[in-house]
Amino acid sequence: MSAFTLCAEDGNARAGNLLTSHGEVPTPAFMPVATQGSVKAVDSKDLQGIGTKIILGNAYHLYLRPGLGVISGMGGLHSFMGWDGPILTDSGGFQGFSLERLRSINEDGIRFKSHIDGSLHELTPESAILHQEGLGADIIMPLDVCVSASGTRDEVETALARTTRWAARCLQAHVCEDQALFGIVQGGLDLTLRKRAVLEITTLGFPGYAIGGLSVGESKAEMYETTGFVAGLLPQEVPRYLMGVGSPEDLVESVSRGIDMFDCVLPTRLARNGQLFIPTGRINLLSGSLKLADRPVQSDCDCYTCESFSSAYLHHLFKAKELLAYRLATIHNLRFVLRLMEEMRAAVAASVFQSYKEDFLGRWKPANEIVRREQKKKWIEAQMNNNRSDNSTN
Amino acid sequence: MSAFTLCAEDGNARAGNLLTSHGEVPTPAFMPVATQGSVKAVDSKDLQGIGTKIILGNAYHLYLRPGLGVISGMGGLHSFMGWDGPILTDSGGFQGFSLERLRSINEDGIRFKSHIDGSLHELTPESAILHQEGLGADIIMPLDVCVSASGTRDEVETALARTTRWAARCLQAHVCEDQALFGIVQGGLDLTLRKRAVLEITTLGFPGYAIGGLSVGESKAEMYETTGFVAGLLPQEVPRYLMGVGSPEDLVESVSRGIDMFDCVLPTRLARNGQLFIPTGRINLLSGSLKLADRPVQSDCDCYTCESFSSAYLHHLFKAKELLAYRLATIHNLRFVLRLMEEMRAAVAASVFQSYKEDFLGRWKPANEIVRREQKKKWIEAQMNNNRSDNSTN
Repeated sequence: MSAFTLCAEDGNARAGNLLTSHGEVPTPAFMPVATQGSVKAVDSKDLQGIGTKIILGNAYHLYLRPGLGVISGMGGLHSFMGWDGPILTDSGGFQGFSLERLRSINEDGIRFKSHIDGSLHELTPESAILHQEGLGADIIMPLDVCVSASGTRDEVETALARTTRWAARCLQAHVCEDQALFGIVQGGLDLTLRKRAVLEITTLGFPGYAIGGLSVGESKAEMYETTGFVAGLLPQEVPRYLMGVGSPEDLVESVSRGIDMFDCVLPTRLARNGQLFIPTGRINLLSGSLKLADRPVQSDCDCYTCESFSSAYLHHLFKAKELLAYRLATIHNLRFVLRLMEEMRAAVAASVFQSYKEDFLGRWKPANEIVRREQKKKWIEAQMNNNRSDNSTN
Repeated sequence: MSAFTLCAEDGNARAGNLLTSHGEVPTPAFMPVATQGSVKAVDSKDLQGIGTKIILGNAYHLYLRPGLGVISGMGGLHSFMGWDGPILTDSGGFQGFSLERLRSINEDGIRFKSHIDGSLHELTPESAILHQEGLGADIIMPLDVCVSASGTRDEVETALARTTRWAARCLQAHVCEDQALFGIVQGGLDLTLRKRAVLEITTLGFPGYAIGGLSVGESKAEMYETTGFVAGLLPQEVPRYLMGVGSPEDLVESVSRGIDMFDCVLPTRLARNGQLFIPTGRINLLSGSLKLADRPVQSDCDCYTCESFSSAYLHHLFKAKELLAYRLATIHNLRFVLRLMEEMRAAVAASVFQSYKEDFLGRWKPANEIVRREQKKKWIEAQMNNNRSDNSTN
């Protein structure tokens, strides 16, 4: 079950309410990522404390560990991890892309080697739905085929066509009415292919649409153009979810182009590296300039971390590699992003979104684009080579 | 300032109240260890939630990082780390023992190389007091000379005599009336030397006495004998603190011999290794037998972890190396130990301590003594060789 109510529009930006089997999600919404049944370094009480309305779980990771039998035996992912709000799970399609060296894809599905123990597994559109039914998420995603930004037109077109055929198989396999199955629009950076994808997927008909295949190595300009183009083609009355996107500037730019939902590991991963969001950009908690800073990281922030601790204490915890550092930093970065969503929603409702966007982006200094793309490329390569530690998967 | 009220006695076991500048501590009391300004993996709210009444900080570690200037500039250790209850700091004397390869000791004090950057430092009885005044703890400890369990009688006797001379210098240097300076009894496993130490230190006169130089490689039988012997010689009207002791069986055995206060990294270190206390001993959260265990770690435990999560979830978090694992496990082990202290206090007040002790030890299976001493030896050697990661110091 899911129902979406559009409450307000301002330009292309939207404010809505998404009703799920575990409660309502005000949109635009950001979903913290609980890859392995835990949003890294925080717990459900922390998530509630910072205003989290919905989280994302990863069916591929949970299928491999602890295994779906374990989680369904405990009554599903909600009760297993102690989170009783809405959950969206992704299907494993993205891992079919990011774990490229560990898999092969044919019309039937994706065969892959476990990144944990090398064991062989097959994921089909049907099993992806079955897995997510076992997890019991409120919103589930079909198995899709994702292509990197450097893919050829042929590769993108083939992936698109298969994504559509798999979407139809997923729809056929989907029986659980408590769960909303969204569609995914692929098509790379080619707007003709994106248009074809929208037509095919909306013809099948889903209660929500995701835009996949972005944030995979393209420039920000390309990502924004494609996002805006696809959002403009999607139906008004259902939610639009931009997968894997979550830097503050991307959230603002994408909401202004009509996106309602997001997920991304960036805020939590940056936090664990000591990179914290403030209104002017990022600060590095390891910077020596914070050693004596008897002030919160962000003086007007309402998060537990900023209300309770000085920058100097956080600097010390990171220097001393104290575990508490990662939790406090994660709380701040997630609160920063969730508050941004709340503020954008209020700005849409008050018909001042454009000036809110200009104010925010006027203060905000994004990470250097070249450095950013280099980092993204390295991260994707690390995923493909599978030479990362477990704790960097999120 | 500190004042101790003895509320009840049962055999040699005692229940009391220790009043400090930051509030009252019911005894027997266990102090979780915040080596570097953080009880590893938890925060002050977690500590309050499990009934922590007093914590221990480490002046040596905090002096090196972040530096005393940083902490006193933030208003002291209480406000720096966001803990407004009582704090006891130790002087660095134990690091003069455990970091043996990095230091030399003469009559003036201890010269040591920083385990962080190799820089040279000197700690004297006077500077140890000054450092702890800067940290602002409620109870502070004099600089003492600790000898391993394998030390010769000559070594122990020399250390004892120097500890007494240093105690007198500490008393002389101590001016801050908000802080209670305790005395430390050394003397190894030689009861004659312990008796001499008690006489010398009590003649100087302190508002509380610690027993040092135990839990440094001796057998449990030797530790219990020495503890009981020294406790029996100490004055009744002030608190008795057994330094560095904290396995559940040692806490019970030592309270039965007249000890009022304890500190130890064992509960928190074991927790981070997935070893959790239950009434019958320890369980290993990584054990495959817990994979499907839809029950809390300890069904009658009132900690947040046991009230919120299954053993299967904790097993999964440890397997997946999720950071949340370390916090949830730490909360449980600390609550186990703190509840044990509360129960012993109630048993003393109700004059049923002996039967409480027998019940507890009748159920409890301690870690194998040979394995335990081997582990302890390795840990001390690792400290001496300084080849440990920062996160294993606690």
